[in-house]
Amino acid sequence: MSKEQRDALDQMIRQPSQASDLAEQRVGFDRLMRSTPLADDVKTTHSTLGGVPVVNVDLIGVDAEDVILYLHGGAYVMGSAESFAGLASGLGRRAGSRVVNVDYRLAPENPYPAAVEDAVAAYRGLLDSGVPASRIGIAGDSAGGGLALATLVKLKSEGLPQPSSAVLLSPWTDLTLSGASMTSKAAAEPVLSQEGLRGRAADYVGAGDTTDPLVSPVFADLTGLPPLLIQVGSNEILLDDATRLATAAAAADVAVTLEVTPEVPHVFQIFAAILEEGDAALTRAGAFLRAHFDA
Amino acid sequence: MSKEQRDALDQMIRQPSQASDLAEQRVGFDRLMRSTPLADDVKTTHSTLGGVPVVNVDLIGVDAEDVILYLHGGAYVMGSAESFAGLASGLGRRAGSRVVNVDYRLAPENPYPAAVEDAVAAYRGLLDSGVPASRIGIAGDSAGGGLALATLVKLKSEGLPQPSSAVLLSPWTDLTLSGASMTSKAAAEPVLSQEGLRGRAADYVGAGDTTDPLVSPVFADLTGLPPLLIQVGSNEILLDDATRLATAAAAADVAVTLEVTPEVPHVFQIFAAILEEGDAALTRAGAFLRAHFDA
Repeated sequence: MSKEQRDALDQMIRQPSQASDLAEQRVGFDRLMRSTPLADDVKTTHSTLGGVPVVNVDLIGVDAEDVILYLHGGAYVMGSAESFAGLASGLGRRAGSRVVNVDYRLAPENPYPAAVEDAVAAYRGLLDSGVPASRIGIAGDSAGGGLALATLVKLKSEGLPQPSSAVLLSPWTDLTLSGASMTSKAAAEPVLSQEGLRGRAADYVGAGDTTDPLVSPVFADLTGLPPLLIQVGSNEILLDDATRLATAAAAADVAVTLEVTPEVPHVFQIFAAILEEGDAALTRAGAFLRAHFDA
Repeated sequence: MSKEQRDALDQMIRQPSQASDLAEQRVGFDRLMRSTPLADDVKTTHSTLGGVPVVNVDLIGVDAEDVILYLHGGAYVMGSAESFAGLASGLGRRAGSRVVNVDYRLAPENPYPAAVEDAVAAYRGLLDSGVPASRIGIAGDSAGGGLALATLVKLKSEGLPQPSSAVLLSPWTDLTLSGASMTSKAAAEPVLSQEGLRGRAADYVGAGDTTDPLVSPVFADLTGLPPLLIQVGSNEILLDDATRLATAAAAADVAVTLEVTPEVPHVFQIFAAILEEGDAALTRAGAFLRAHFDA
């Protein structure tokens, strides 16, 4: 497809980080995520949902009944609902829905289970506002994809209805970092490192256990989850977090679709504007959510 | 979706076979596959391609440039190009293409590598007839799905161009029967048994080795294969043949889509006329082939 686009993107993102501490890294990550301006018809407003701060991402003139609850990436320690408005709006546009980006609490200041509690509270808030579960989809990327999955598992134990479907972009589902791709894809991976993720996992789990199924939901009982779409690039050390999740979901009789795009990096959908594969994947993700709203 | 349809189908196909020998089983299997009459606009003609007998499955009035090379199921010992014309025509209709059903030689009379040789010869015959590889898709179900995959691997070593894409329906990719679903899904599985498959694998492999990557292509080097769509039901002892294939293809930088449909049996697309999930899956399979023809 787009060999030149892929190579250019790989060069662009394969930069050693200059940031020395987390505060600087947070600023740099937010700047990266905001580097593509929002489209003119995207409107963001801040509010709370179930007591949790959120950013509402709407398209001007679109009065959507369907809602995507979006959980941003950033290894549980970075990123924000506002800085992920671009990616979220791209998904919402393709799904024909509005998006609620959740500003869940970040580690290390607020380790697990803060993020899961906030995601569940926001979902519950959405239900309480009158949106039926059948008109909600849940989505997330990277740590947000793992968090989306953990949220689904937690909803079960709380007796809450599952949303209509879930879309997980390069989800980080195993904080024990036990996937074979941690080493087999290390050379191909332009963004993440096992060492870096190990530090983030420690930040997130605090005094807890990385094998906890709500921390590493690839180890959870996935029975009863809604249809899942998992997208991943083959140039990712998190590749096996996606393939093992698909395998576990299949074993648990979950409707699951796994889409592997060759030779693209972690959360390549962020680069939809400059990478054909990213645009195509985001379009499929939107169609998947749309097909399951009130199906 | 169709809980009643799924239950009725499970009852229908969960019948103990009355047939005592292979000749009877072949007759019974052909009768089952022919039990749904062909649509009025389907025309089958017999010819040869690369010296291999084939059944051409065409839709009257449709002059398609694109061709699906179809490899039927039947555990390498049963089934025929003619009796699979119904399934093949359903796929061809949805792909907007014609279909060539290959009557590859069956075991035990003709063990491996006869089937692979015939599939490659038919593919080469299609190329020699002037159809470019970019206008060919390859597809197969069950043993035919494994055979389709083995054919792709063999094409590489023969220096032949890959087809535009491949669709594998409940493919049997591991004749060593080492998948965890061999036992974990044994109770849910209405059709196949590990014991039965062990006999068929022995028939097929003859004096050979079930770990041979052209016999069990889940163990092959999959680098360079075209986009793969793998569909499987969760009520299958062959579930892990599909999930492990998707994992191996992803590791080898192949574009792969895995679709797991919950609580449906082996090659549920055969029952498209009476099972919503079968119709929906066959429609996605056709769309996948169509999207890759001459892409």
